[in-house]
Amino acid sequence: MARTPGRRRMITVHGFSPSGNCHKVRLLLEHLGREYRWVETDSSRGETRTPAFLAKNPNGKVPMVELEDGRVLVESNAILCWLADSTPFLPVDAWQRAQALSWMFFEQYSHEPYVAVARFICGWTPHDSPRRTELPRLRERAHEALAVMERHLSSHAWFTGEHYGVADIALFAYTHVAGHGGIPLDGYPAIRDWVTRVQSAPGFVAMPAPDPVARARIDASV
Amino acid sequence: MARTPGRRRMITVHGFSPSGNCHKVRLLLEHLGREYRWVETDSSRGETRTPAFLAKNPNGKVPMVELEDGRVLVESNAILCWLADSTPFLPVDAWQRAQALSWMFFEQYSHEPYVAVARFICGWTPHDSPRRTELPRLRERAHEALAVMERHLSSHAWFTGEHYGVADIALFAYTHVAGHGGIPLDGYPAIRDWVTRVQSAPGFVAMPAPDPVARARIDASV
Repeated sequence: MARTPGRRRMITVHGFSPSGNCHKVRLLLEHLGREYRWVETDSSRGETRTPAFLAKNPNGKVPMVELEDGRVLVESNAILCWLADSTPFLPVDAWQRAQALSWMFFEQYSHEPYVAVARFICGWTPHDSPRRTELPRLRERAHEALAVMERHLSSHAWFTGEHYGVADIALFAYTHVAGHGGIPLDGYPAIRDWVTRVQSAPGFVAMPAPDPVARARIDASV
Repeated sequence: MARTPGRRRMITVHGFSPSGNCHKVRLLLEHLGREYRWVETDSSRGETRTPAFLAKNPNGKVPMVELEDGRVLVESNAILCWLADSTPFLPVDAWQRAQALSWMFFEQYSHEPYVAVARFICGWTPHDSPRRTELPRLRERAHEALAVMERHLSSHAWFTGEHYGVADIALFAYTHVAGHGGIPLDGYPAIRDWVTRVQSAPGFVAMPAPDPVARARIDASV
């Protein structure tokens, strides 16, 4: 984590480290070499539903970026766009920027609710959770989203024009751990190659591995 | 619908008129006075799942914008940002633009999957559809989203800084017809006032009323 010039204010990120949505923010900050403060906020234990947290984000979710003057910004992909503004991670060309946004909305609507939720159920709910009945449908929809990504990556190196950027970071977050939700990437060679490219980018930091309890649940689920 | 200077290329919008996501695009184009061609595409009858459509958008959804050279842009909120670029509907200030994006991601993740899906089930599925068992949960989550909006609108006129903009258009689309899904706005005076402000904006066009079959289903559902 490098220090950056003083004209950029220190930011605080409230995030839950095993969350892909939160890791997106950390990953871009590390790529940019920007200094930041991380406040671990365990949403699985209700820490985003306290009165103090809800006063800052009434929607009760992390990640949340807080500036020194108390202003906040929420929604992982909006945070990525803000951090990436005037950097190579956000295209300057309006059409390419729109395509990056398009993939980011795809991620939040057609990908995350299946890929990330299947992972959450497998690792962070008890073995007898009634939510486990949702898994077959979630996995089916997850594979539909992965097929759309595979098709794009069969003829493009990245999701944002010619360069690694915000759309790649948004889609990488849960795609590379899809296996935790019982959604293997075996049938997606272009996605697997792209995951390797992302992991090779300067400043890349891995998402923390699931804790032993989550790991045991995942191993028993998939 | 005014003609605009020739330097702007003609665009084609593939959309399903009763869809709020599609109406967002029409509404902004009308506010901007931009010329466009509308290709009615009935997603409820599989018209977004034909081989010809899937060749353009593998995710099989409308709205989809198509340029004269065949390039396409999908995802309603990405289309709004692209159309609004360099207009008063998208803030110039990076922080305000990020706040607009934040509300648009909120709309697609925490609002549309409940408010819009409840409306779809009530109006566009048969009375005996098994999906109707989802309605209580969808309505509960819809009210959570509306409460977040009400709180913001209690001290702000708009969702995007000081002006009507893309975030308002994105949130207006399904909020103003939440009643179709059995989600009345009675308890949200600030939202109701904001709906009236949107409807008073220059160039505003109303979303088409549900057809008689959908109307009868809605009346029997709520």
